[in-house]
Amino acid sequence: MKSKLYVVGIGPGGKEFMTEQAAQALNESEIIVGYTVYADLVKKYYPDKEFITTPMKREKERCEIALTKAQEGKTVAMVCSGDSGVYGMAGLILELGEKYKEVFVEIVPGITAASSGAAVLGAPLIHDFAVISLSDLLTPWETIEKRLHSGAAADFVICLYNPSSHKRSDYLEKACDIILEHRNSETICGYVKNIGREGQTSEIMTLKELRTRKVDMFTTVYIGNSQTRRIGNSMVTPRGYR
Amino acid sequence: MKSKLYVVGIGPGGKEFMTEQAAQALNESEIIVGYTVYADLVKKYYPDKEFITTPMKREKERCEIALTKAQEGKTVAMVCSGDSGVYGMAGLILELGEKYKEVFVEIVPGITAASSGAAVLGAPLIHDFAVISLSDLLTPWETIEKRLHSGAAADFVICLYNPSSHKRSDYLEKACDIILEHRNSETICGYVKNIGREGQTSEIMTLKELRTRKVDMFTTVYIGNSQTRRIGNSMVTPRGYR
Ligand SMILES: C[S@@+](CC[C@H](N)C(=O)[O-])C[C@H]1O[C@@H](n2cnc3c(N)ncnc32)[C@H](O)[C@@H]1O
Ligand SMILES: C[S@@+](CC[C@H](N)C(=O)[O-])C[C@H]1O[C@@H](n2cnc3c(N)ncnc32)[C@H](O)[C@@H]1O
Repeated sequence: MKSKLYVVGIGPGGKEFMTEQAAQALNESEIIVGYTVYADLVKKYYPDKEFITTPMKREKERCEIALTKAQEGKTVAMVCSGDSGVYGMAGLILELGEKYKEVFVEIVPGITAASSGAAVLGAPLIHDFAVISLSDLLTPWETIEKRLHSGAAADFVICLYNPSSHKRSDYLEKACDIILEHRNSETICGYVKNIGREGQTSEIMTLKELRTRKVDMFTTVYIGNSQTRRIGNSMVTPRGYR
Repeated sequence: MKSKLYVVGIGPGGKEFMTEQAAQALNESEIIVGYTVYADLVKKYYPDKEFITTPMKREKERCEIALTKAQEGKTVAMVCSGDSGVYGMAGLILELGEKYKEVFVEIVPGITAASSGAAVLGAPLIHDFAVISLSDLLTPWETIEKRLHSGAAADFVICLYNPSSHKRSDYLEKACDIILEHRNSETICGYVKNIGREGQTSEIMTLKELRTRKVDMFTTVYIGNSQTRRIGNSMVTPRGYR
């Protein structure tokens, strides 16, 4: 029998956002591998498991460790925040996994930040939306710009991941400037920081205001389409155009 | 104290895809309201609850019922498949909810079909993606076409909801024709039918082949970007462009 490697999306933070399937996968696993921050989020619920953590940006190494342990016959879970399939480890595990013929990989989805953050703001993603990462570590900035232009011009709600980092503190401003070429400066926007974690905060504001905000890498940003409205304290995109 | 209305995303099907938060919201509720099909998915787990179901397309009526019951002092849950915030009831409840001042609305996210179907296929959504519904009931077809053009031209992975219905059996073909104006006909695509439910089936194929497929309304479709590959039996989009 092949040994098993689960690639588990744990949702935005606390255990209450995990699915039963994800909880079971972690329960079944002997070893839990992950980026230090995410591993710490689940450690308290699974104190008896062996944890192997690696720092940020060591994704390939992390995947090789998980695959090797599984190859050796252990049941392993690789944990990711949110959904393991959205800017997560599911892809790299499947790519590297080709060489580990004895390992059976099972992808376990989780609630991605787009969905969990949307629930905090109200209902910004009710209609067609585009998910764009502002990180240019693995994607040329020209490609990111093109997607911002296209998404804005075609009136998608736009959801931004990785909106900032130390080296890229003005990327959100740049993104807003591109979107402002196509959208009204009064377009309703919002962001949520630390979704489902300690220190969760959120704000709803106009596109013009968003342009001036400083957000960090634990933030997900929403730019409404032409129909998005503020209703009370909520950001809501109607389902249609009538 | 205000009475509570939860708008709960139950995920694609079985209870194993529900989060703990969603299960708790249903547990706390006295009345569960929903479209017949989704209500039936949870009925067996909550046999003691009062269920109020309405047929398809009666969304407004369904929301009014839920809000009225909550206004009367009951704790109510409105259930949606997938995420309540993605083509779900969260928006309409917040829009109509303005008139029900005594009702406190809480949006409970769920795993949307894009994520749950992606996990079945492998990892198609690892990089930037656009979610587009092919239903023109509430959106002019010209807007949908524009989004298909933009999404394809900017090399987004494209995830299609509502790809078909009795009246629109050729919409997927039309969508593929638009995408083929921008993408190679060998682009890797996939679809999953009945995700997490009885009769789950999936297929990975080229864009040219997808164009000829007949899918139904319980199907979610994925069109890869220029980097998406088939690895073994999986559809995988790498995280970057290097
Ligand atoms: C490398 S991506 C990982 C995404 C993750 N796999 C998911 O599906 O949510 C990291 C980005 O996701 C977003 N994110 C993930 N978890 C978040 C949280 N709890 N609160 C706010 N944003 C979050 C932020 O935009 C962050 O920069
Ligand atoms: C009105 S939308 C509701 C989407 C739902 N709120 C979600 O977040 O998944 C209905 C469409 O979602 C997709 N869908 C929802 N559940 C599905 C499932 N279990 N299997 C396949 N597709 C599904 C299909 O494309 C379907 O036409």
